[in-house]
Amino acid sequence: MKPTIVRNIKRADAGVVKQLGAMGVATVHEAQGRTGLMRPFMRPIYPTARVSGSAVTVLCHPGDNLMIHAAMEQARAGDILVVTTVSESTDGMFGDLLAVSARSRGVVGLIIDAGVRDVADLTSMDFPVWSRAIHSQGTVKNTPGSVNVPVICAGAPVNPGDVIVGDVDGVVVVPRERAAEVLKLSQDRLAKEAKSRERLASGELGLDFYGLRAKLAELGVQYVDGET
Amino acid sequence: MKPTIVRNIKRADAGVVKQLGAMGVATVHEAQGRTGLMRPFMRPIYPTARVSGSAVTVLCHPGDNLMIHAAMEQARAGDILVVTTVSESTDGMFGDLLAVSARSRGVVGLIIDAGVRDVADLTSMDFPVWSRAIHSQGTVKNTPGSVNVPVICAGAPVNPGDVIVGDVDGVVVVPRERAAEVLKLSQDRLAKEAKSRERLASGELGLDFYGLRAKLAELGVQYVDGET
Amino acid sequence: MKPTIVRNIKRADAGVVKQLGAMGVATVHEAQGRTGLMRPFMRPIYPTARVSGSAVTVLCHPGDNLMIHAAMEQARAGDILVVTTVSESTDGMFGDLLAVSARSRGVVGLIIDAGVRDVADLTSMDFPVWSRAIHSQGTVKNTPGSVNVPVICAGAPVNPGDVIVGDVDGVVVVPRERAAEVLKLSQDRLAKEAKSRERLASGELGLDFYGLRAKLAELGVQYVDGET
Amino acid sequence: MKPTIVRNIKRADAGVVKQLGAMGVATVHEAQGRTGLMRPFMRPIYPTARVSGSAVTVLCHPGDNLMIHAAMEQARAGDILVVTTVSESTDGMFGDLLAVSARSRGVVGLIIDAGVRDVADLTSMDFPVWSRAIHSQGTVKNTPGSVNVPVICAGAPVNPGDVIVGDVDGVVVVPRERAAEVLKLSQDRLAKEAKSRERLASGELGLDFYGLRAKLAELGVQYVDGET
Amino acid sequence: MKPTIVRNIKRADAGVVKQLGAMGVATVHEAQGRTGLMRPFMRPIYPTARVSGSAVTVLCHPGDNLMIHAAMEQARAGDILVVTTVSESTDGMFGDLLAVSARSRGVVGLIIDAGVRDVADLTSMDFPVWSRAIHSQGTVKNTPGSVNVPVICAGAPVNPGDVIVGDVDGVVVVPRERAAEVLKLSQDRLAKEAKSRERLASGELGLDFYGLRAKLAELGVQYVDGET
Amino acid sequence: MKPTIVRNIKRADAGVVKQLGAMGVATVHEAQGRTGLMRPFMRPIYPTARVSGSAVTVLCHPGDNLMIHAAMEQARAGDILVVTTVSESTDGMFGDLLAVSARSRGVVGLIIDAGVRDVADLTSMDFPVWSRAIHSQGTVKNTPGSVNVPVICAGAPVNPGDVIVGDVDGVVVVPRERAAEVLKLSQDRLAKEAKSRERLASGELGLDFYGLRAKLAELGVQYVDGET
Repeated sequence: MKPTIVRNIKRADAGVVKQLGAMGVATVHEAQGRTGLMRPFMRPIYPTARVSGSAVTVLCHPGDNLMIHAAMEQARAGDILVVTTVSESTDGMFGDLLAVSARSRGVVGLIIDAGVRDVADLTSMDFPVWSRAIHSQGTVKNTPGSVNVPVICAGAPVNPGDVIVGDVDGVVVVPRERAAEVLKLSQDRLAKEAKSRERLASGELGLDFYGLRAKLAELGVQYVDGET
Repeated sequence: MKPTIVRNIKRADAGVVKQLGAMGVATVHEAQGRTGLMRPFMRPIYPTARVSGSAVTVLCHPGDNLMIHAAMEQARAGDILVVTTVSESTDGMFGDLLAVSARSRGVVGLIIDAGVRDVADLTSMDFPVWSRAIHSQGTVKNTPGSVNVPVICAGAPVNPGDVIVGDVDGVVVVPRERAAEVLKLSQDRLAKEAKSRERLASGELGLDFYGLRAKLAELGVQYVDGET
Repeated sequence: MKPTIVRNIKRADAGVVKQLGAMGVATVHEAQGRTGLMRPFMRPIYPTARVSGSAVTVLCHPGDNLMIHAAMEQARAGDILVVTTVSESTDGMFGDLLAVSARSRGVVGLIIDAGVRDVADLTSMDFPVWSRAIHSQGTVKNTPGSVNVPVICAGAPVNPGDVIVGDVDGVVVVPRERAAEVLKLSQDRLAKEAKSRERLASGELGLDFYGLRAKLAELGVQYVDGET
Repeated sequence: MKPTIVRNIKRADAGVVKQLGAMGVATVHEAQGRTGLMRPFMRPIYPTARVSGSAVTVLCHPGDNLMIHAAMEQARAGDILVVTTVSESTDGMFGDLLAVSARSRGVVGLIIDAGVRDVADLTSMDFPVWSRAIHSQGTVKNTPGSVNVPVICAGAPVNPGDVIVGDVDGVVVVPRERAAEVLKLSQDRLAKEAKSRERLASGELGLDFYGLRAKLAELGVQYVDGET
Repeated sequence: MKPTIVRNIKRADAGVVKQLGAMGVATVHEAQGRTGLMRPFMRPIYPTARVSGSAVTVLCHPGDNLMIHAAMEQARAGDILVVTTVSESTDGMFGDLLAVSARSRGVVGLIIDAGVRDVADLTSMDFPVWSRAIHSQGTVKNTPGSVNVPVICAGAPVNPGDVIVGDVDGVVVVPRERAAEVLKLSQDRLAKEAKSRERLASGELGLDFYGLRAKLAELGVQYVDGET
Repeated sequence: MKPTIVRNIKRADAGVVKQLGAMGVATVHEAQGRTGLMRPFMRPIYPTARVSGSAVTVLCHPGDNLMIHAAMEQARAGDILVVTTVSESTDGMFGDLLAVSARSRGVVGLIIDAGVRDVADLTSMDFPVWSRAIHSQGTVKNTPGSVNVPVICAGAPVNPGDVIVGDVDGVVVVPRERAAEVLKLSQDRLAKEAKSRERLASGELGLDFYGLRAKLAELGVQYVDGET
């Protein structure tokens, strides 16, 4: 694949992106049919990290952050860098200088299937990052890669301009074209869950609420009494 | 194994269960002869999580939380759900709705050798969970399993009604019949450690305190001087 | 290798050790030419842990902490215990009693390529630990090992008296003889980074700042326009 | 738990044990209701390894094979040593000398949730081993453990005298009391599979054979035509 | 995502598919610009396994092989089943009965990011499989999924009809539309390598052959003499 | 660390190197006091691989095999390339062309804490390799590293000229200066083991042979009778 930097990608509506962030990862994942979720090894560097934004994708050689610099020029306010490497790596490709640069561009967060460092600084800055590892290992700037091409990041396909939502539950990707629809579905789900929460809080069992008693019987689950 | 839900299990004395929680995982594990400890990949979702309770065991198909709903009906105030899957899974089988339901039943915590989600909500509720993973991946309700049968959870055998103690050091299982005895042994151990702590704090060496100098000599450990 | 305890090792200058701690792991790792870094599985038990000190190395049999007791006698104020095992282990070889003992000797922290327990107590004491695991599993005192011999800890070679720096980014080892030089290089690096930070914060791109545009061209990276 | 060696355990009928070996791991696992299977990291040291026998269980300290020697005295012709460690280990606890000793006692194989070495010799001897690792790391004989107590090996509970079946598909444990019943169920299953095989070999689809078309419809699976 | 079975997918030219198989995984991966490679945990069940074919993709719930049965009907002679699960699993979703069925349909192999069993039978049949695990754990047929939709398998995107090449080096995916072009590029590469092999076999150094001496100098690599 | 290629390293006596190979990994590891062993994830690409030779060490950037080419010029007949990367990698840094080149230089094998490819070719050539992974992922030649400097490979320190022994049990490193001594100790060990083997083969128990009965008693191991 010839190394390529794509300029001027399309993004989802900023209002939709913002509201998707308020929905949370689990809700969005459910609302869009349980797709788009990254693997559970992607963890926030501090537990209150929470973000939504438009993906600027970055495909790097392992141990090489050259293309993150190239990506910065393509990023706009509200974007999130989504960085992955050609093969698995935990190197610390991103630290406080890049975060300063990112913030000056309006970049609102980083999703990186590799390592990150200067975590104390990033936390002080409240610059949210989800990564595979925290590692100080330095990187070089020698090998080309691509910006704003489709990538697989932590098991999830990401296209440039897709909406990224991250919180303590992980990271989910919403295809750009589906953003408004998924927002609506997420809002519906939250509304429905609010009602369910009330009934469950009042002591109603999920067995009754979801009508599972018949299912258990049909599946041949037997009830027996314990030793008394 | 025919899928089975066992009702009316025996539990340990509530006072004993409560006091075991105050002992802490490491102490209880030592007091009962270094048994019953779960694997170290079981981590609390927030560092101050601390719990003790009686085990309601749940054996699920991977990616399926049907039996957690069935288990909820069998749970009483003071119980802890101990969930495991037939084969390894990190799916998010439990979230805030189930936590609301659990709390309404008086369930005091969750031990799950799989994933959990809605971690921000669970943390706000101070609902303590120890899990293998934090993951938003949703589950289905299609395949039967069992409730209150003996299970292996994160490497430790758990029988229904066993006492579970969890804190930042992990999770330990105390057989129901041994609960009072293990509490006594734990209290003795803490008392003894308090005295040891004093002497060690005053600068006495473990080598002298535990009488290890003779052992080192017997094992052929030699002392040499460094380069000076 | 005959089990050996080496007394009276050389240490780096205390002032240099202290100042290296202020530099942080990522900076020191870079300053000394990207060497000496431990693997990313070494994590602090609480996120604000931060330390620097002189290494007293401890080589143990797995599941056996006898030599940690022997090492305590060799430790002085300002030292850090660097514990590794002959083969991989996650057992909880160190807990609050050992931490009390360590503190009474002036030991300032622990680096252990194995497990640690009593983490709530260690956190209350603000006794910083970096470990492979948090695990309550108890250990024995039956098998000899060595103190103050060269070891490999979490992938990094450590000689007794080397300077250890730990923070949320991990752990780095500075050879004793290079401590002053590495401190100077770290300070230079920080000074230089302060200037870079200013320019990047003002919006200057890394592409321009580091002169990477020519490199991208030379490497054949092409720019194309996205679908608009 | 006080270290204990149990003498004179009960074993299943030798003919039943032998015939269970002929059934194979997958069949036995299915026949007894999908229980008793060890984790998939347990691999044979050579692909044609195949065995069945009665379990002599051995619980060792990590890095210590003392109790394997103690177990050898308790083993009889037709037994299999089932070795596990108090915490996870990959050390090479068993090699060609122990295999020679085992063979002289009539021991027919080894299941070890740890490491093994001298694999070329064991292969020449056709002494079948399933292990977590192949590793030359030597062990000591310093710390007590138990023989013929209930253990958890690679995730499966094993009681002394249980029947062990191993082949290239892994290792399964059959409770001693159920051995004859499970053999019968396995034979039934094989007979049934022979008929299924014929029909499937002739081109009949599983969809029809197992009646799955209705299920797909009921589950809402839709058929669409690809791009043509 | 609504569960869907896509019928009548397009496939690449059978001759091209066959010839791509002769090229081998490493060559094809290089020829198409180092894309399409599955993760290294995908291993053949026997070392001489070698295959090429057209992908029939299968997306399953973990622990559930219902959709493999559905996929069989969509498969034609020369196809390869490419099976993945919604979340990570090692369950044995495929065994000898399914292999018999697959062979009767002309299916030439299986790529499965999960487990496989009856490996001795599959090996006897010379039915090539690449899997994440060998595991006997049985599965159910309760939860819907999809056939011939785009999937991510072991880190690589696969579209139905893509060409799959597998050998001892792993598995690579060639997009259907690029099959002929990638074959040509692979052949060119092999021809070029044959010449390189000759020169390297005669003792010419890669340093000279690839002109790397200048690069080493430019990169500041110094030559020094060892202790003599 | 400035990238450096060290020429003209010292090697151990060729006869000693050859004889060490005949001793096998487990024996050499024991003979030299249980040091120098690489981690168990280093596996031979075919089970009959067996080698001994002098280490030419290679330190590479992840995903970059430039320095393997540089190393080839420094290698002589009887050498083994010992390749490691600055951070963890599984990329296929070595394949059949490099093997052809290596063989033309008289290089007898490869130890690589990363990936290897063209495994079918290497097996046909009987070119022995121990690696962390088999992976086709291609690499670049852009980033400098070093040749014949001290490295840590798979957890073991290796100095240039050290003797490497590899077989199905793994890889062990013998310091060059100790090669003759370790050979002698290995021979003694083998002679002693031959005698032990005889006695154990005749049915003598390790308990008696190694005098372990007293130890068991001293350690408080109790004998009890099973249920009969």
